[in-house]
Amino acid sequence: MKPAKVAIVGFGTIGSGVARLLLEHPERIARRAARPVELVRVIDPDTKRERNVDLPSGMLSDDLDAMLADPSITAVVQLIGGLEPARSIMLRILESGKDVITANKALLAQHGPELFEAARGLERSIAFEAAVAGGVPIIAAISECLTANQIDSIQAILNGTSNFILTEMEQRGSSYEATVAEAQQRGYAEADPTMDVDGSDAAQKLAILSHLAFGAKVDWRAIPRMGIQSVTADDMRYARELGYHIKLLAVAQDNHGELELHVSPTLVRQGTPLSEVSGAFNAIRVHGDAVGRLFFQGLGAGQMPTASAVVADLIDTVVGRMGITFKTLNLWSDAHHPPVPLRDPAAVPGRFYLRMNVEDRPGVMSSIAGVLGEHGISIASLIQHEAPQFVENSGTASAETATAEKEAAAKQAATAEAAGQRHEGNIVPMVIMTHRATEGQLADAMKRLDTLSCVYPGTIRMRVRD
Amino acid sequence: MKPAKVAIVGFGTIGSGVARLLLEHPERIARRAARPVELVRVIDPDTKRERNVDLPSGMLSDDLDAMLADPSITAVVQLIGGLEPARSIMLRILESGKDVITANKALLAQHGPELFEAARGLERSIAFEAAVAGGVPIIAAISECLTANQIDSIQAILNGTSNFILTEMEQRGSSYEATVAEAQQRGYAEADPTMDVDGSDAAQKLAILSHLAFGAKVDWRAIPRMGIQSVTADDMRYARELGYHIKLLAVAQDNHGELELHVSPTLVRQGTPLSEVSGAFNAIRVHGDAVGRLFFQGLGAGQMPTASAVVADLIDTVVGRMGITFKTLNLWSDAHHPPVPLRDPAAVPGRFYLRMNVEDRPGVMSSIAGVLGEHGISIASLIQHEAPQFVENSGTASAETATAEKEAAAKQAATAEAAGQRHEGNIVPMVIMTHRATEGQLADAMKRLDTLSCVYPGTIRMRVRD
Repeated sequence: MKPAKVAIVGFGTIGSGVARLLLEHPERIARRAARPVELVRVIDPDTKRERNVDLPSGMLSDDLDAMLADPSITAVVQLIGGLEPARSIMLRILESGKDVITANKALLAQHGPELFEAARGLERSIAFEAAVAGGVPIIAAISECLTANQIDSIQAILNGTSNFILTEMEQRGSSYEATVAEAQQRGYAEADPTMDVDGSDAAQKLAILSHLAFGAKVDWRAIPRMGIQSVTADDMRYARELGYHIKLLAVAQDNHGELELHVSPTLVRQGTPLSEVSGAFNAIRVHGDAVGRLFFQGLGAGQMPTASAVVADLIDTVVGRMGITFKTLNLWSDAHHPPVPLRDPAAVPGRFYLRMNVEDRPGVMSSIAGVLGEHGISIASLIQHEAPQFVENSGTASAETATAEKEAAAKQAATAEAAGQRHEGNIVPMVIMTHRATEGQLADAMKRLDTLSCVYPGTIRMRVRD
Repeated sequence: MKPAKVAIVGFGTIGSGVARLLLEHPERIARRAARPVELVRVIDPDTKRERNVDLPSGMLSDDLDAMLADPSITAVVQLIGGLEPARSIMLRILESGKDVITANKALLAQHGPELFEAARGLERSIAFEAAVAGGVPIIAAISECLTANQIDSIQAILNGTSNFILTEMEQRGSSYEATVAEAQQRGYAEADPTMDVDGSDAAQKLAILSHLAFGAKVDWRAIPRMGIQSVTADDMRYARELGYHIKLLAVAQDNHGELELHVSPTLVRQGTPLSEVSGAFNAIRVHGDAVGRLFFQGLGAGQMPTASAVVADLIDTVVGRMGITFKTLNLWSDAHHPPVPLRDPAAVPGRFYLRMNVEDRPGVMSSIAGVLGEHGISIASLIQHEAPQFVENSGTASAETATAEKEAAAKQAATAEAAGQRHEGNIVPMVIMTHRATEGQLADAMKRLDTLSCVYPGTIRMRVRD
């Protein structure tokens, strides 16, 4: 059969990976596409920089127009990051009559409706498996394999950088700041990791998954999110003591027709598959009404895992499967999908973990319990260790943990002292697990707790998944 | 758009589940197929039995010929078990110009080449997601989502009944026989569970996966397999002591162009995703050269999980995706795939777990170590507990385990006594973990060990995955 001619626009890390797969394994790809897939052009403004793939001479150029004008090219892998010029270039590729394959989740989460509408109007397709969870085929799973199901819930670890940081913090007992610095040195975190650690990246991916699974047309910026920046090594240790691991969890859950959506560090019960996902891995737990619980895990980023998803999409496009999927899915269209109401975040119930720094004197615990009680929140369990200077052993931790704890508590006391906060007495951490309450009840109670003289600033609240 | 008319042949548990999805959720399915999918006929010889779905009057009949003669029906879900008449009926459906969707792994593992060849000749498709791992979309993952990869290895738990039995044995410390009896009572095992527990069912599924992933045209009966019947509660406990869980693992692994294939109870390192799969779940760990390690977990059997996979295939067929996939994959065809040589099972290396019942007298350990040494097998670790009547504590186990162990050892001693085997001295279990050796070395050494007077019959050998 005649070869399918394809191009790459954006020759960075992922682009080089895609080029490597196409150039180094042509037989493999021809076998799966039932004809050769021939890379004919690679477009990037920077034609000089060294990449880890050798392109045939003349293939790399900065001439986007020439590529667009070449009618023999039918599919384009577009790997430009950010919103512009990525958006305009994608529109131009579609208008030139070519199908698009992309990994740009920010672009889709923000301009999905416009881009998909344009593609539909032009009878072209946009494939985007690589935009969510990298090499994990979660887009195909939801849009092709679970089509018999109404999906009830998605719980996912969608940001590998955050998960790497949390895993390191837990395993080494190191601080957030030190772990981020190390992750940056080792190339696991970007120079500016803000979007990764503050939940934005995960929220963008969750917006895409929610659209596929629930038909929800939600702007990712409207998804309530909390990052991992305020999680401490102490939280990690308390969570473990209580039987949990802390994960940055993205949740989309149907509650009687209302969709609960949020991204936040969450205590996940030890022994459940999600809680055991460590390092840079991504994982998604999907529940469908027919299939029950499904769990997917794999690398969510990196050159070759992402290129694996891009090339699978490219093959799907070339053989014609993607055209059918794109048409039948009718993504981000106003047809078919009745709008899905979002659940008021304040009304979302669950169990919560609270860590407060409190004054170590009689009556404090009763004041705090009183405030929680007034807001209808009952306490499931409580950890309060003695003040640093008196600590001999901890109630629930092992001897080893207790030693680490003593050190941590001593550090914390020193920090508080340096900040001039010790005049009112010793600061001790108090950790509370609540019974089921709503986010709104918790928010109100925490406002009130902050006004108590015995509660120091910096109270942390996290959701719990059992 | 015009509705797609479909039929079901074989109205058992899965067939009823498929009918329920089609009849109870027509809007959902129409949305995903971009047109209505209308169930028009259900064929079964038994038209009287009650099922858990109400068919419109006149839909159920035993008239296969009338269905075949109806040209408006374009796709048929065929859910007849076993080999015949399933094979002949599938051929007749294809010859009548209709596409087939099936869940029958035994049929495909045995007659795949003939059936796929027939479908190709007639320009029809056979979809079979439900044939392997039920609701887990592993067929789509390998044949559509990982097409950019050369898959290096598949390690999988493909039989939910076995996994349920092993999990119960481990958690309750109960015997294989007692657990099977209970599983049968609770509906988790069939009246004759032979194919599930002896590795045959898993080998059939592994044959299908190996074909998809490696192009290997292997008869499932040629796959070396060992069942779980000889695994004891003691093995479970020793494995746990050593840091493993025992799973019935199906393995397909590329070794420099030769394919290693086997199904056997295996010690899987605790903390790895596969080792933590409990109950009736299935799980597959796939490694591809681009994507790295992927892990899938879900229900591998049961009415609705299996129906979920069947209906997804039906939608794929109706929208035209399956036709493309079937054509491009060229399954079981002689074109494309060079034959993949199978690795000689005797040459497959790995670590092994051995449990022997040995005489409790000086010199026994040195005899055994001597035999292993003669065969080039070195010992990585060894557990030998004292004879039941002298047991006070165990070397490596916790106090709790030791108590359970004492009870088990006492039982074992009683059994041995009842069998009249104690005349030569006390029987004690000896557990050995080897360093890397080949299956062949182990088989030879075990033959030799069986000739030693200090080794009683019933030595168990299992593979180890770290």
